[in-house]
Amino acid sequence: MTFPAHLYRPVGERIGLFVLDGLGGLPHPDHGLTELEAAKTPNMDALSQKSSLGRVQLLPSGMTPGSGPGHLSLFGIDPLELEFGRGLLEALGSDYALEPGQIAARGNFCTIDGEGLVQDRRAGRPTDDECRRLCAKVSEQVSIDGVSVELIPGKQHRFTWIITAADLGAKVNDNDPQVTGKSALPFQGQGAESAVTAAIATQWLEKAQQCLADESVANSALLRGFSTRPHVPGFAEKYHLHAAALAVYPMYRGVARLVGMQPRDAGRGLEDQAAAVKAAIAEDFDFVFVHHKDPDTAGHSGDFAAKVAAIEAFDAALPAFLDSGLDVIAITGDHSTPTIMEEHSWHAVPLLVHSKRALPQPDSTFGERACMNGDVGTIRGPELMPLLLAHANRLDKFGA
Amino acid sequence: MTFPAHLYRPVGERIGLFVLDGLGGLPHPDHGLTELEAAKTPNMDALSQKSSLGRVQLLPSGMTPGSGPGHLSLFGIDPLELEFGRGLLEALGSDYALEPGQIAARGNFCTIDGEGLVQDRRAGRPTDDECRRLCAKVSEQVSIDGVSVELIPGKQHRFTWIITAADLGAKVNDNDPQVTGKSALPFQGQGAESAVTAAIATQWLEKAQQCLADESVANSALLRGFSTRPHVPGFAEKYHLHAAALAVYPMYRGVARLVGMQPRDAGRGLEDQAAAVKAAIAEDFDFVFVHHKDPDTAGHSGDFAAKVAAIEAFDAALPAFLDSGLDVIAITGDHSTPTIMEEHSWHAVPLLVHSKRALPQPDSTFGERACMNGDVGTIRGPELMPLLLAHANRLDKFGA
Repeated sequence: MTFPAHLYRPVGERIGLFVLDGLGGLPHPDHGLTELEAAKTPNMDALSQKSSLGRVQLLPSGMTPGSGPGHLSLFGIDPLELEFGRGLLEALGSDYALEPGQIAARGNFCTIDGEGLVQDRRAGRPTDDECRRLCAKVSEQVSIDGVSVELIPGKQHRFTWIITAADLGAKVNDNDPQVTGKSALPFQGQGAESAVTAAIATQWLEKAQQCLADESVANSALLRGFSTRPHVPGFAEKYHLHAAALAVYPMYRGVARLVGMQPRDAGRGLEDQAAAVKAAIAEDFDFVFVHHKDPDTAGHSGDFAAKVAAIEAFDAALPAFLDSGLDVIAITGDHSTPTIMEEHSWHAVPLLVHSKRALPQPDSTFGERACMNGDVGTIRGPELMPLLLAHANRLDKFGA
Repeated sequence: MTFPAHLYRPVGERIGLFVLDGLGGLPHPDHGLTELEAAKTPNMDALSQKSSLGRVQLLPSGMTPGSGPGHLSLFGIDPLELEFGRGLLEALGSDYALEPGQIAARGNFCTIDGEGLVQDRRAGRPTDDECRRLCAKVSEQVSIDGVSVELIPGKQHRFTWIITAADLGAKVNDNDPQVTGKSALPFQGQGAESAVTAAIATQWLEKAQQCLADESVANSALLRGFSTRPHVPGFAEKYHLHAAALAVYPMYRGVARLVGMQPRDAGRGLEDQAAAVKAAIAEDFDFVFVHHKDPDTAGHSGDFAAKVAAIEAFDAALPAFLDSGLDVIAITGDHSTPTIMEEHSWHAVPLLVHSKRALPQPDSTFGERACMNGDVGTIRGPELMPLLLAHANRLDKFGA
């Protein structure tokens, strides 16, 4: 089903989308309450009595979303219909929205022996400082005519490799042999444009090896997941929204950039984000995306109490967000991260939508079980944005 | 949406799918409880408090599934996208999984008069013994060069007609005129391969009529629903599951064979099936399908008390199933058979999914109304298998 584009109104009320990363949880084995249910959240509970509740399923049945696909789904994009490679996700994770005409790949520093056989695919996991130094050295010493090459250092052996040149294709194989004791694979491109990319990668790798020849840490590199920027309609083009992203972590700013949001300084967390929302409203933004990472981090650590605390911290900040001039407030997650699983899961995430057009359930609180019986029901991720636009009086009626 | 095949993990936990045939029901006019709600099911009720509940809709809104499509839908196949004829269903119903290169048709013994006009399309509904005798006689006396013909006797006038030969097509018309007093239609095939099938059917029918000329019961036959085996990915290929089917009735073994399950001796019912599940786990099967026919039979008879008893019998056997080493337990139906309707219906069937990753509702029981508000919501039949694989830790995350 394609949403009829003529229904989107150019004006309407202001929307705040608050994503508590990994919000959804599962019952604690002792007391049977989920993290959100166990948390003391007087502000969200009070708001839920003036809100429509429901749940969001980010991906089809049983599929567990990574953070990238989870956010894309919330932002109205079906992640399964979007072809993108690891390189794009790496670039986004570095707060780098790939531009049209650029190619990104995920890079690993590695070690090879005298015959070119890969010895360690991760070069012994160097420190982040070493990685930064190696990226800077290769960037400085390796140049290719007519091509701009950027290396963005990541954690340990990881970096993002980005090239800019005319008419490049991304259909290039990974050169990672996946096992040690074998040579890296030669780069080959499918079609003329990708053959150019493969030739650039080949040339870059030869020069990088020369540059790294005297290094004890790493003397070569592996590249995988060659990607271009996929065509994604932006929030302005698609929804007529002037959207700001307030995320502390680069990955989430990157995904927001991909859909045309403008990252704004989110400072160090919730308090700074509340001030930043007010500033964004004053700047005439009519959509703000606020990302709160801590519940997911605690979920991955299997720390129930820490996840409860991370949710309570958001609840404590909620009055400031409510006071910033937003008309529609949505609170949800990009996926579940139950602490008993210590990883992401497929379970639908709780959703609260507050507006003056909400259909609340009296005496409800904000929690997994309360949300199962709410007005919104269980919707797919890409169904959320139209719902928020409707609450913000930004959708025309369909038909007479 | 095509489910990305790379997400399926080759290993994980063990899954048991328990299908209570015709499980779903409607309220009794006197007390307002459905069969499942009225049944005393302490074991399923206790399990539901450690399970995710929901409902399964086997076919699109309003469509009532037969047993074949109902099971195919549970097994992950959209029955509307699978082209198969009555002949295949008949073969499956005889516990006969059609092989590639074979053609099956549904056969009726019938009577014709001296001018070849059909007198009785069901030959006065002969006894099953008569049907077996006629099938044996025709099988013995009728032969066609280069073609193997098998007749599998069914109930009364029914048999399954299966031929094996090279390069056969199934685009052949039924010869049943549907009314008495008319001649059977000549067989015609669309395309060269189906023309060969039509010629074999014509030749077989002439010889069968000669063979039956001295019979008082039936002197001809009608064939309909010519079918080949459809391409269906097996459980091993698609889900990396080594799957066993424990069904007493041949129809359900046949459908299970079609998706690559291995039928195992299910004995005479629940007690034997519980022992067989344990044996299958010991044989390293990691998926078992257990079929319990009685609720459907009682529903067709309009016998509310008998359907309640059939459900209670399963509940009594549940502890033995729970004790057999399965990690994920799903209990559902292949369709509803409300006793007040005395036939299958389109109503979504209750679903219980127990695993250590479930999101239960406290104080819930297993019944139609409780399942309406469960974690799983209402899912389509083909969404069930990915959900069970997720609960069994057999699906990778999508994206980083």
